[in-house]
Amino acid sequence: MANYLSMNRDALSVEFNAVKQEFEEIKGAKLSLDMSRGKPGADQLDLSDDLLTLVNKDSGYKSQNGTDCRNYGGLDGLNEMKALFSKVLGMDADNLICGNNASLNLMFDVITQGMVTGFGDEPWVKQGKVKFLCPAPGYDRHFGICEYYGIEMITVKCTETGPDMNAVEELVKDPAVKGMWCVPKYSNPLGITYSDETVKRIAALKPAAKDFRLMWDNAYVIHDLYEETDKLLNIYDECVKCGKEDMVFQFTSTSKITFPGAGIAAMGCSPYNMKLIKARMTVQTIGPDKLNQLSHTRMFPTYEALLGQMKKHGDILRPKFEACLKQFEEALGDTGIASWTKPRGGYFISMEVLDGCAKRVGELCREAGLIITTPGATFPYGKDPKDSNLRIAPSFPGVDELATAAKVLCVAVRYAALEKLLK
Amino acid sequence: MANYLSMNRDALSVEFNAVKQEFEEIKGAKLSLDMSRGKPGADQLDLSDDLLTLVNKDSGYKSQNGTDCRNYGGLDGLNEMKALFSKVLGMDADNLICGNNASLNLMFDVITQGMVTGFGDEPWVKQGKVKFLCPAPGYDRHFGICEYYGIEMITVKCTETGPDMNAVEELVKDPAVKGMWCVPKYSNPLGITYSDETVKRIAALKPAAKDFRLMWDNAYVIHDLYEETDKLLNIYDECVKCGKEDMVFQFTSTSKITFPGAGIAAMGCSPYNMKLIKARMTVQTIGPDKLNQLSHTRMFPTYEALLGQMKKHGDILRPKFEACLKQFEEALGDTGIASWTKPRGGYFISMEVLDGCAKRVGELCREAGLIITTPGATFPYGKDPKDSNLRIAPSFPGVDELATAAKVLCVAVRYAALEKLLK
Repeated sequence: MANYLSMNRDALSVEFNAVKQEFEEIKGAKLSLDMSRGKPGADQLDLSDDLLTLVNKDSGYKSQNGTDCRNYGGLDGLNEMKALFSKVLGMDADNLICGNNASLNLMFDVITQGMVTGFGDEPWVKQGKVKFLCPAPGYDRHFGICEYYGIEMITVKCTETGPDMNAVEELVKDPAVKGMWCVPKYSNPLGITYSDETVKRIAALKPAAKDFRLMWDNAYVIHDLYEETDKLLNIYDECVKCGKEDMVFQFTSTSKITFPGAGIAAMGCSPYNMKLIKARMTVQTIGPDKLNQLSHTRMFPTYEALLGQMKKHGDILRPKFEACLKQFEEALGDTGIASWTKPRGGYFISMEVLDGCAKRVGELCREAGLIITTPGATFPYGKDPKDSNLRIAPSFPGVDELATAAKVLCVAVRYAALEKLLK
Repeated sequence: MANYLSMNRDALSVEFNAVKQEFEEIKGAKLSLDMSRGKPGADQLDLSDDLLTLVNKDSGYKSQNGTDCRNYGGLDGLNEMKALFSKVLGMDADNLICGNNASLNLMFDVITQGMVTGFGDEPWVKQGKVKFLCPAPGYDRHFGICEYYGIEMITVKCTETGPDMNAVEELVKDPAVKGMWCVPKYSNPLGITYSDETVKRIAALKPAAKDFRLMWDNAYVIHDLYEETDKLLNIYDECVKCGKEDMVFQFTSTSKITFPGAGIAAMGCSPYNMKLIKARMTVQTIGPDKLNQLSHTRMFPTYEALLGQMKKHGDILRPKFEACLKQFEEALGDTGIASWTKPRGGYFISMEVLDGCAKRVGELCREAGLIITTPGATFPYGKDPKDSNLRIAPSFPGVDELATAAKVLCVAVRYAALEKLLK
């Protein structure tokens, strides 16, 4: 396949006719494919079925300290659950809280707390306009929280090494900037991992706002596809070194380790932040579902057991990522109209198409029976300024389906590019 | 036993010496008893052990509409779970949301939403001082939410038929009054149920604040001790009749039906409120733990099955309540220094002792090895203006232990009364 950008108009027309015919054939096949969400497939869920049989009358309901996990009590999770997340997040167990099933809920509650009671300064609602830095492309649900609360989002370019730190260092001089969303490892959707330099510069930030908080969503912390994994510096340790440990909230969950709908979410923070968080939680809840935490810790008595589970997930996901990447290489490799990331973990591949073409690709995919993440969703306010980013989620379909889905996507990318080039 | 209030000083002294001796004997026994919390006993928890075996590989993970409950999806709970709560709360399933394990968390989130985004009017944080009506004695965790947010609490006397409605009708004329906490059935701690007249007058309220909301915590809605149950009018129906359906949020949970730490909480409200709540929930969470809801609906395929479970709880709890009441009658019946409620359901007995004596009773109980709910906790800000109310929770200890505990309490009540009368 030739480079579209160096073709003359006639050659482009010929190519467009061929692509249109290919597209019509695909439409005729009446496909129904979905690459829109980072949702584990059924075979991944099966890996955790033991969770449902590990706690019962025979095995008993007691946690290590003798608590009957069926009853009330325990605001911040089982000690053994915290011990496990302590290994995952590289933070002391005392700095952790284990909650119910959605880390998103923990994040929402932290932002809400900033809004209504604040982090040592006036509540954000009483400070007039407040702003958040949003490395993009990023996770739409992070941006959704800011939008819901009317927090102004400032887009910062996310590169292969993390957020554009020159921009970030400038922007935090504004006291209205109260935080930054980060998915530091195998980021959603780029699949990149923040470099050591990026993490160090983030920890060394000197925000004008005393109540500036990093929302460090370490969702894919051990979600590797390959034995050789990306390495991420420990943000909390780096912040401590800079005397800035109050600046960061870290989050993760077992949503993509065990059951997406019924995992355990966790949060880590400094003692000062913990005091504020617990002051809220004490009035907010009686405590999380301890039985589910007990199941989890029985299934993963050690960190090594947890990593063993991740190896199995990786073995299921790797061929799916590779099927996509192979198809992209074959169908788009030389065309010059698209580039994409090659993540070593996480749940997403990010593709850049020609400016102004992403939405059109989404429409074409839909016509052809393939749902992809709504183009734009990876940017604040759902608006991709260049309309060029696509988020591809290869986890849910089977490998065979995926090859088809990736093929459909590539045809749509070529179709949209040719439309543009022929305009 | 004679009436203390009609004894002369000498007789009181003789009695005090006898009571003191009794008290010293109890102290010598070095008891360790707890009647402080409405916590089900282990035998009650055993009633729900089937929950832990009903969902597994063999029985399958799918809800009635085919959802794999292990995976993501479903913001507001399983349809079949809503159908069950629909019978419990007497509201249409469409008006319900089923969440995770703590109804307190649902309530906290509603109040938080009032604070930070509001209910159709300005957020409460932007309205200056806001106030809540708190029928008391009441539930300390309700009051805790208000205190956390700096919402001024106005105590309203809770009588045998519910809140003093004359007072309530006057107080809601203040536009700063944004709501009222209610535990309408087998109330915590009185054990009383709001009369039909009370419910009708509540539904007919004309609060000056458009964003006034009833927090109707129907925690003990089917928690009967006797076949002949208290009847509570349906608040939502009554509000609809008055054109006031947006005024009420109803809450309940299975915390005291299945597992206190791992039940299902539910909330019901009008379509308008539902729209506001879901606008928040959509950004707040991916959805509740559906597997636990699936277990619950398999354990209780019908409302009748649920009521069958409550009958078993009642059979365990009834002798405990009766053991307390018998002891109170025997040890305090004629003394004139205490009165108590005789609930037909719920988890608490409320006792009135002589003014100024409740805290002293708490201290004496502690000295004697019995923990009761901190006196004052049943009032806003933890301050019982008359220092006379005691909340007694008979559910957790065994029946034999309870008889001892009740006896200790009675000795403490007599001790404190005699101290006062001899002052």
